[in-house]
Amino acid sequence: MTKLKDVKKVVLAYSGGLDTSIILKWLQTELGAEVVTFTADLGQGEELEPARRKAEMMGIKDIRIVDLREEFVKDFVFPMFRANALYEGTYLLGTSIARPLISKHLVQIAEETGADAVAHGATGKGNDQVRFELSAYALNPDIKVIAPWRDWSFKSRTDLIEFAEKHQIPVPKDKQGEAPFSVDANLLHSSSEGKVLEDPWVEPPEYVHQRSVSPLDAPDAATEIEIEFLKGDAVALNGKKLSPATLLAALNDLGRDNGIGRIDLVENRFVGMKSRGVYETPGGTILIAAHRAIESITLDRGAGHLKDELMPRYAELIYNGFWYSPEREMLQALIDKSQEDVEGTVRLKLYKGNVIVTGRKSAKSLYRDDLVTFEDDRGAYDQKDAEGFIRLNALRLRTLAARRRNTR
Amino acid sequence: MTKLKDVKKVVLAYSGGLDTSIILKWLQTELGAEVVTFTADLGQGEELEPARRKAEMMGIKDIRIVDLREEFVKDFVFPMFRANALYEGTYLLGTSIARPLISKHLVQIAEETGADAVAHGATGKGNDQVRFELSAYALNPDIKVIAPWRDWSFKSRTDLIEFAEKHQIPVPKDKQGEAPFSVDANLLHSSSEGKVLEDPWVEPPEYVHQRSVSPLDAPDAATEIEIEFLKGDAVALNGKKLSPATLLAALNDLGRDNGIGRIDLVENRFVGMKSRGVYETPGGTILIAAHRAIESITLDRGAGHLKDELMPRYAELIYNGFWYSPEREMLQALIDKSQEDVEGTVRLKLYKGNVIVTGRKSAKSLYRDDLVTFEDDRGAYDQKDAEGFIRLNALRLRTLAARRRNTR
Amino acid sequence: MTKLKDVKKVVLAYSGGLDTSIILKWLQTELGAEVVTFTADLGQGEELEPARRKAEMMGIKDIRIVDLREEFVKDFVFPMFRANALYEGTYLLGTSIARPLISKHLVQIAEETGADAVAHGATGKGNDQVRFELSAYALNPDIKVIAPWRDWSFKSRTDLIEFAEKHQIPVPKDKQGEAPFSVDANLLHSSSEGKVLEDPWVEPPEYVHQRSVSPLDAPDAATEIEIEFLKGDAVALNGKKLSPATLLAALNDLGRDNGIGRIDLVENRFVGMKSRGVYETPGGTILIAAHRAIESITLDRGAGHLKDELMPRYAELIYNGFWYSPEREMLQALIDKSQEDVEGTVRLKLYKGNVIVTGRKSAKSLYRDDLVTFEDDRGAYDQKDAEGFIRLNALRLRTLAARRRNTR
Amino acid sequence: MTKLKDVKKVVLAYSGGLDTSIILKWLQTELGAEVVTFTADLGQGEELEPARRKAEMMGIKDIRIVDLREEFVKDFVFPMFRANALYEGTYLLGTSIARPLISKHLVQIAEETGADAVAHGATGKGNDQVRFELSAYALNPDIKVIAPWRDWSFKSRTDLIEFAEKHQIPVPKDKQGEAPFSVDANLLHSSSEGKVLEDPWVEPPEYVHQRSVSPLDAPDAATEIEIEFLKGDAVALNGKKLSPATLLAALNDLGRDNGIGRIDLVENRFVGMKSRGVYETPGGTILIAAHRAIESITLDRGAGHLKDELMPRYAELIYNGFWYSPEREMLQALIDKSQEDVEGTVRLKLYKGNVIVTGRKSAKSLYRDDLVTFEDDRGAYDQKDAEGFIRLNALRLRTLAARRRNTR
Repeated sequence: MTKLKDVKKVVLAYSGGLDTSIILKWLQTELGAEVVTFTADLGQGEELEPARRKAEMMGIKDIRIVDLREEFVKDFVFPMFRANALYEGTYLLGTSIARPLISKHLVQIAEETGADAVAHGATGKGNDQVRFELSAYALNPDIKVIAPWRDWSFKSRTDLIEFAEKHQIPVPKDKQGEAPFSVDANLLHSSSEGKVLEDPWVEPPEYVHQRSVSPLDAPDAATEIEIEFLKGDAVALNGKKLSPATLLAALNDLGRDNGIGRIDLVENRFVGMKSRGVYETPGGTILIAAHRAIESITLDRGAGHLKDELMPRYAELIYNGFWYSPEREMLQALIDKSQEDVEGTVRLKLYKGNVIVTGRKSAKSLYRDDLVTFEDDRGAYDQKDAEGFIRLNALRLRTLAARRRNTR
Repeated sequence: MTKLKDVKKVVLAYSGGLDTSIILKWLQTELGAEVVTFTADLGQGEELEPARRKAEMMGIKDIRIVDLREEFVKDFVFPMFRANALYEGTYLLGTSIARPLISKHLVQIAEETGADAVAHGATGKGNDQVRFELSAYALNPDIKVIAPWRDWSFKSRTDLIEFAEKHQIPVPKDKQGEAPFSVDANLLHSSSEGKVLEDPWVEPPEYVHQRSVSPLDAPDAATEIEIEFLKGDAVALNGKKLSPATLLAALNDLGRDNGIGRIDLVENRFVGMKSRGVYETPGGTILIAAHRAIESITLDRGAGHLKDELMPRYAELIYNGFWYSPEREMLQALIDKSQEDVEGTVRLKLYKGNVIVTGRKSAKSLYRDDLVTFEDDRGAYDQKDAEGFIRLNALRLRTLAARRRNTR
Repeated sequence: MTKLKDVKKVVLAYSGGLDTSIILKWLQTELGAEVVTFTADLGQGEELEPARRKAEMMGIKDIRIVDLREEFVKDFVFPMFRANALYEGTYLLGTSIARPLISKHLVQIAEETGADAVAHGATGKGNDQVRFELSAYALNPDIKVIAPWRDWSFKSRTDLIEFAEKHQIPVPKDKQGEAPFSVDANLLHSSSEGKVLEDPWVEPPEYVHQRSVSPLDAPDAATEIEIEFLKGDAVALNGKKLSPATLLAALNDLGRDNGIGRIDLVENRFVGMKSRGVYETPGGTILIAAHRAIESITLDRGAGHLKDELMPRYAELIYNGFWYSPEREMLQALIDKSQEDVEGTVRLKLYKGNVIVTGRKSAKSLYRDDLVTFEDDRGAYDQKDAEGFIRLNALRLRTLAARRRNTR
Repeated sequence: MTKLKDVKKVVLAYSGGLDTSIILKWLQTELGAEVVTFTADLGQGEELEPARRKAEMMGIKDIRIVDLREEFVKDFVFPMFRANALYEGTYLLGTSIARPLISKHLVQIAEETGADAVAHGATGKGNDQVRFELSAYALNPDIKVIAPWRDWSFKSRTDLIEFAEKHQIPVPKDKQGEAPFSVDANLLHSSSEGKVLEDPWVEPPEYVHQRSVSPLDAPDAATEIEIEFLKGDAVALNGKKLSPATLLAALNDLGRDNGIGRIDLVENRFVGMKSRGVYETPGGTILIAAHRAIESITLDRGAGHLKDELMPRYAELIYNGFWYSPEREMLQALIDKSQEDVEGTVRLKLYKGNVIVTGRKSAKSLYRDDLVTFEDDRGAYDQKDAEGFIRLNALRLRTLAARRRNTR
């Protein structure tokens, strides 16, 4: 805490909710710091004007509310999807990928406004604190980062509510106890964690889900769509060019209606423990299937396999908060290099939780039916070549087998 | 072909179908070789007695028909599933994993019977020739391998049929032309390739599917099941201990009925071209989801991430035919080491193509709710530790940021 | 510090030197803890009896002095050398590999003696604290670890000396100021860091080196030796079977005399900063060259390349202190699997800093002069096979080239 | 051979030596093809004018002799050295890296001159045929490649000599039998293989070495040099800016005189067998040590470790002939991204086979003595942070240890 004594001005990642309102007040009263609020529209689906009014009510002079949806999808989500990134084989990194963007703006605003610190509302047990802070430090080595959940002396929910009431922060009735689970949301996904989800043997109640119908409640007929790609990024839906954020929003609608993109998992946090989460990524789940499908005809095997082998590392870096690290940037350079000819159209059926690829085509296709055909290929491929190919690939294995035979 | 001149006795992987019957006759007439037939029950779901009768009719003295289902699942499928192996992110390697087992028996029978060669019916364009032959050479460095599809002089289907008729090999009417697609099947999967599937933009017709109902035709209610694991392998279904093959067969039934495990993909063959396949792996699709789920609570992060990074390499080795290679065996040693405590129970819902994990529990669970809880954790985790953790992880990033600042 | 209040009994890694003597006294006086001293002979080349006398003088009842040289080499150094482990391409991990062994014994003694804590003398800036503590926690989740350099309130060397004098700890004259550099030593290596070495542009003075002559001062004639391996471990030198520690000691003598194994490097510490060190690993430098040489004729390419790709990760784990982690153990299982047939003899010349491999032979050799010869190979290799091998390897590259041509 | 019937015009990689002269004549007489000769100066240290005269004598109209030294070093050697590429831990890839450049020019000349084929003089057992041909196919999917050593009917050296004499190709006396070993040379290295080197237990005779003195014969005093880097490439030697080829040539002189860069190894060829080679890479051996040294102070840990892990793969690609492959280009993009700030000066001592780094400095240095110092660091690093860092890194290990304890 001593390190916080000298803080004069703080940029706070402010949602307008109860917790960050308490933090705002705490920064003012306990640290005596001037606060600039920063509220980002990442497509979380909430009104942001209430955040402005609350900040005004608490005397904030410099209130920043910014629509980051296009930047979010274009510069963060899409580059990540070029890698087909999945953390631990399943998680599409919906929360992880938003954090560096928020930190980027916190640091920029700090530099513009002469603030010496940034503050966030993530707890001391989770990954988000790490992601916020690593990003902030990577962008400004001298910035101070305030994480009130780690730093303040409140011991319980009751303490917090008491502080809020003392400082005239309105406490909605349903926030007086703790929520039955904790949520995060942006244009890519919603997550739910904690409380009713803490026992990994217990099935998540339906009400936990925030942005998708259950596969069981989805329509009985399949919805067919086409997604067009250019340089590895989705650029059009059903023949219509759309901006990155607009396209992802449209896929979210389609996914939501068809019960797509729910997962229930136990994951390994960077801070060392396992946690259980329920994630909904309707549009992203469609997108990754479509991206793999367009890659399947336009990406060379050597390129694809190298990407696949490096993907878990890349996903881990994003999960752990190392978006702004040289190694993530190096991997991005490698991935982006592979995407130059990843273009064309994928057709999919969406049906009750299923994303079914039914076709893919491309002017840059590497699929050659003259090679693969069971019919006469008119000399495109000489089957005799296979014998030499196999024999030389086998040579070392035969040498090993001969050794085994000779030395046993 | 000269290398084939001296062949005296051949063990042929014989299905009893038209193509391997032609091969059998060709080995007898063109090579003048004595033929031993080997027909394996891998759970392909066909009667094998007709193969015996046909072989007898063609004068074969030594006919081997062997039930390999338990060996297949126990020693090949299950070790592979411990790795969560997926080729190119999607393919469960159902054909690939059966080939080395067949070669193992071909070579064993050759050694028992004094045969100097083995023969298979795979074509010169596919992966299976590579898998058969690499395995055979790895097990016996001196074995000869005959691949008639590469070696004979038939130019067309008509030539084949003519040869068959000349040699009194019965040609079923529907085999007189070529099949509309080519199939392979075993207890793990069915594959369909070629012909009507050759244009990757065209949706596969429903009749291509062999062992699963369409998700659209599956029951309207979910089926809940529980799978129990020990050392990474499934050992019980719904509380009942089952042998490996029996368990996989039961999962296949469940998957088939619920429209689970269909994929339609374009993959990269080892011999250098892309091909399009439709695969059905109903039981395997359930199994991999369940295995990942039990790992999620029993496998340490370091272990799990290392496995995830090596999985694509491991899958590629199996796909390419390198089951019997030192590097596959080294990776297997690594993977098996990780599975010692992978045990417990997973509950899943099967519903119209979806495999939904709804719970997992284990006596060896590493999930600790005292660490992760939003409630008071009674000192299990000190949030202050996070600050030091982050600051040291950030140190090199801050040093980089300072350099950028100082040298721009 | 509060966490240390309840400590009753501590096992201290005690060298007998000034610093750990001060720590011993500090544990007694400031913590009021009973202290058990543990002094390991790791081949650091110091008399250990003085440590006993000093501990006795400070009233220690339970003094443990243990010769760990064989355990060190057999269970730590040799397994690591099977991997050809080099951190950042150059460092043979001489300090890193000793730490988990010390922690293992600290924890064992704690369990035997009912101590609730262990203590070490590593500073808060280095890697050793991490290695000691991760190992201790991995072996006993409830152990307390005391790191006085992080925990006490001394601000300067003067404070330390004052404390020592106050408590009648004899301070050798040359220790009254700080040493011109800091050292660590064991049977594998000596390291020197800090002070006169802090500027990485300044050449290390000759007097920094502790266990090797300069290449410039080494004999003018080469020394020829032969090392024999079994299962990847060195077992004999010049035809004489030697125990692991004895063999390494003999290689150290040979290396020392011939100016072998000095390196001067800047490395990346796990705690986030770069540091400069001068390391001497005379015997290890000979050993790694010899091991690579015996592998070169006995290890299959697939096995060797997989090992090479995983080596940096393995080395990083040891460097960072994760010897007792599932992922290191998994990698070890993979590596050990590869070493089953790594046996035979390597001949080397040692000359003024050079380790020159001049021959290698093995009953398990995979080198076949019938394959490689420029002379007639009597059919061992059919050069025609190469054409098919190349053409199928080229197929995807030609497909890419055709796309480039067709779409530009 | 049938495929060669239609060849009209061939570009031959022509050294002017006996073997490629025989090939030239064979192409003319047996194939009836028009031949264009291409002779590249890659710094192999031979006069090229004799090649012109010989080609003229054999009636060649279109003779291309090109100095590729700068292109070789700038576009092939230097990019490879940015990766610190070592094949199998030891080989600097001196032959491998030259082949794609030769193929590039062969294909270009074929396109300029309307030739339909290229030809090379590599045998059917080695790696060079693969490298030449993969590169050619990757650059022109329709090119034909002629490899006379695989295609012609000569059975022995005697046949060759007879053919030469019949066609008035002068046969130097010492070429009438076969050479005692086979050589390749360019600005980066010389290699010697075969014959007297075929037994890997026998020490290479001194006369095998072509471009370096023995360490035993090198000067008794060390030579000190400084190399300056920019963006990962060497740009100056002893303060003097030099072009890539000039700089490498100067390092070769320094290395040669000081007995630097000899290795004697057994390597794994891509075609499946092991072979023994003696390589001399005097300048390259200095360069890689210097490059690692400048990286050690300018490259971030995350970047460096990622490079180190990918290096073996990158080296294998070059060794196997996949320079012109998407995966090599992707890795190059990753590597080049890392080199942006790799600049500064390295000081080295060269002494009887040793390359001793004695200092490194850079305006972009990430080495911070304020962090690492044993002296008071004035708050740059808070040792308390280490505790949290260690405790969170240990958390999963402690959870594992608790499980072991609770379930045993």
